[in-house]
Order: sequence, then structure tokens, then C-alpha cells
Amino acid sequence: MLIRGMKHRPKALLFDVFGTVVDWRGSIIRELRRLGRKKGVRADWALFADSWRAGYRPAMDRVRRGELPWMALDELHRRILEDLLERFKLRLSASEKHELNRAWHRLDPWPDSVQGLGRLKRRFVIATLSNGNMALLIDMAKHARLPWDGIFSAELFQRYKPDPATYLGATALLALEPREVMLVAAHKEDLAAAREHGLQTAFVRRPLEHGPQATPDLSADRRFTITADDLIDVARKLGA
Amino acid sequence: MLIRGMKHRPKALLFDVFGTVVDWRGSIIRELRRLGRKKGVRADWALFADSWRAGYRPAMDRVRRGELPWMALDELHRRILEDLLERFKLRLSASEKHELNRAWHRLDPWPDSVQGLGRLKRRFVIATLSNGNMALLIDMAKHARLPWDGIFSAELFQRYKPDPATYLGATALLALEPREVMLVAAHKEDLAAAREHGLQTAFVRRPLEHGPQATPDLSADRRFTITADDLIDVARKLGA
Repeated sequence: MLIRGMKHRPKALLFDVFGTVVDWRGSIIRELRRLGRKKGVRADWALFADSWRAGYRPAMDRVRRGELPWMALDELHRRILEDLLERFKLRLSASEKHELNRAWHRLDPWPDSVQGLGRLKRRFVIATLSNGNMALLIDMAKHARLPWDGIFSAELFQRYKPDPATYLGATALLALEPREVMLVAAHKEDLAAAREHGLQTAFVRRPLEHGPQATPDLSADRRFTITADDLIDVARKLGA
Repeated sequence: MLIRGMKHRPKALLFDVFGTVVDWRGSIIRELRRLGRKKGVRADWALFADSWRAGYRPAMDRVRRGELPWMALDELHRRILEDLLERFKLRLSASEKHELNRAWHRLDPWPDSVQGLGRLKRRFVIATLSNGNMALLIDMAKHARLPWDGIFSAELFQRYKPDPATYLGATALLALEPREVMLVAAHKEDLAAAREHGLQTAFVRRPLEHGPQATPDLSADRRFTITADDLIDVARKLGA
């Protein structure tokens, strides 16, 4: 079965992870709340989580511009965390900081993710293509029971998405042509970059990624091969 | 529980694959026999399989010495295959050759492998560290239902084992210290190299890797952290 606009059935699906497969915001807020209770500190933990995530883009851009040497996402998260702990007046021991930074290794999946991936795995090679580092993605897969066939990270190419080296690097390691690979992501910029390099694209709507107040752009976009409401819907639309 | 001689419980286990986890020889002989019947050719398919595998080491050594550019194992297998087809007078179309070369993507596990890995996966990160290329290892995991948490290949480092870059590269991607990682392999040379770079080691006896006539060195070796009879025995000895 072929979807309209899908000239080639893909052989492998690459997944963006943060926001697309796992609910980073809800998971980080839960960890912060637990830690706040333990330490007797009250704060706007949603703002802390959003600030943590918001710091990642400029930090990554500094790596991309060569102002910082290559640095895995764990290290970028840790640098941002130091500032936030000061700003939110949360005093932690070295081991508590380490443990909190590893909250990104323990993110929970969206309710549809495990079932959707399970269905897709029967018909396609399914793998991550994430800016998260390898150790983070491996720990997360164990925690969330994500049944990946392979784990590809920006770390393997020492380039962050949307650098072409990431999409084309993962495609080469799969020994496939770009048109045989589909990027599945909740972020249009990521998909647009993959499309530019010949990959097929599946846009997944994740209205709650940035919380109930956010108003992300969820409109269907004709540039992308398919648009889906969640990973089960991706499976349905790919006939899996 | 700590084994005698094991100062640190490892956090991750890296597995050699050909011979250690899968029975390459039996699987390749079965594929060749099937193809021979289809093409009406009779030959010593065990000799063909052994010659195919025997060609891999000198080909890899040529890559290591820089006489050949980096080449994934699929390509090395394909070069060796061309010679063998001539020697064994087996005439194949381009697509039949491609299909036969991919027999290495469809190797069957030893009878204990899936159960042993399943047990080990509950307590450790389990990943490949193989000279097979990524696409080969991903296809094989799907075919043989090997429940890897991660797939590391020589291809990621463009260096073949026993190059230190492979053991240390995988360890770095796991964000671990060498002593927190254990290489599990049926080949003493592989284990000795890993040990030299600080990894723990598990020697797995695979008496049938080279067929019933072969007499491989299966003696316990005090250099290695543990010696086991199969992957279930590795699990038992690591308390998993």
C-alpha cells in the first residue's frame, strides 16, 4: 500500500526523540517537583523545565559556530543546569546535580509511543536520530521500553541536527538511499532539513510538547510526505 | 554479587557477534546448500563457507595497513565472494550475488543466545561491538531477535578490531570508564586487546564455531575476568 505522494515505500524510519517520542516537559517537571519536595524548596518547576530546554538551542548553536568544542548533550544540559540552580536558589550536592542532569535519560514516552513503535518495527527498521548523546538514548530506551532497532545520535557525527551530516550520516550507516529513509518528527525545521537532503518526512502533531498553554504550529504542511496525530497514526498511515 | 577477580561490577557488556552470538558457519552453509540446489550445482559448501570467512582477515588487514581505503564488511565480503564464485564455478546474476552476500545479515543465533541476552539485558546495558557494519548488525538483530540496547560497529570508528579505537570508542559512547565495560567474546585475541585497554573480559567457549572437526583453544585463561560455556552461563556467572 502506498500513500498518495509517497513514490517509494521507505525501508527505515528515523525518529526525532525529544517531543516526538517522549514527553520531556512532563517528565522533567515531575523530577523537579519530587526533588523540590525533598529539599523543601518551592518554585515554578514548569518554568525551570522550560528554561532548561530553552537553553539547549543557544548552547548547541555555540557548538555549531565553533565557539565551544564538540560537547555531548549531557554536558550542554549540565552547563545550563548550573545557571538555573542559581537562578532558582536550589542548592544541590555534586551527586544530586549529576542525578538531576540524568533526568533527561529517564524521560517518559507519550502514551502512544511504545505501541506505535512496536507496530512500525514489524515492517520497518526503526532507529533514533536525535541530538541526545548515545548513553542518554540507550538509557532512555531501557527506561521507556522503546524497541529501537538502532540508535543514531548527533554524537556519532559530532554535528547537531539540522546539520546535513546527521541525516546523510545515518542514511549511509543504514546503507540506504535518502529516499528509502523517512524522518519522523514533531518539528518542522528538522523535517524541512531532512527533506532538503532527499529523505521522506512524517510530521507528528504533539500539541502538548510545550505544555497546555503553548500554541505550536500544528498545521498540515504539503512539503511533508505524511502528517499524523501520533505514532500509532504513523503506523496506520504507512500500512503497518 | 561479585565474581572472584571482578573488582567492579560492569555496567555494560559489549559483545563480539560472529561466532560468539551467531553461528555464522552453520547459517552460511545452509544458505549455500539452498542456492546450490536451486542452481543445480554440487560443491563442498562447508569449504566455501570456511573460505569466505578465512578471506575476511587478510582483506581487513589490507584495510588496516592502508592498502585499501576504509571498506565496510559487506564490501569485503562481496570482494571475497567474487573470487569464490569463480573457484566454485557458481554462476549468479547480480541480484543473486547481492542476495547471497546478504546471507551475513541473516545469521542464526546459537541456541542459548536469545535467552542469555534477555537475562543480561535486565541487569546490564547490552550492545554489539563487531566488525560487521551497522546495516548488517541491525538486519541480523531483527532476523535473530537479538534484544540489543545499542549497536556499535567498527564502521563507526572506521577501524577494525582489535584496533584500540573500537574498544575505547564504544566505551566513550557509553559514557563509561573501561573498567565499567566487559567485552564478551569467543576469541582470545579480541579479549586480550580489550583487556589491554582496561575492559573486563568474558571468554565464551564456542567449540562448534569452525565446525565439528576443528579443535579451537577452549582452555580457561587467567587473563580473562570470567570463562563461560554459553551466554546463559555468562548471565549466571554475572548474577543476572
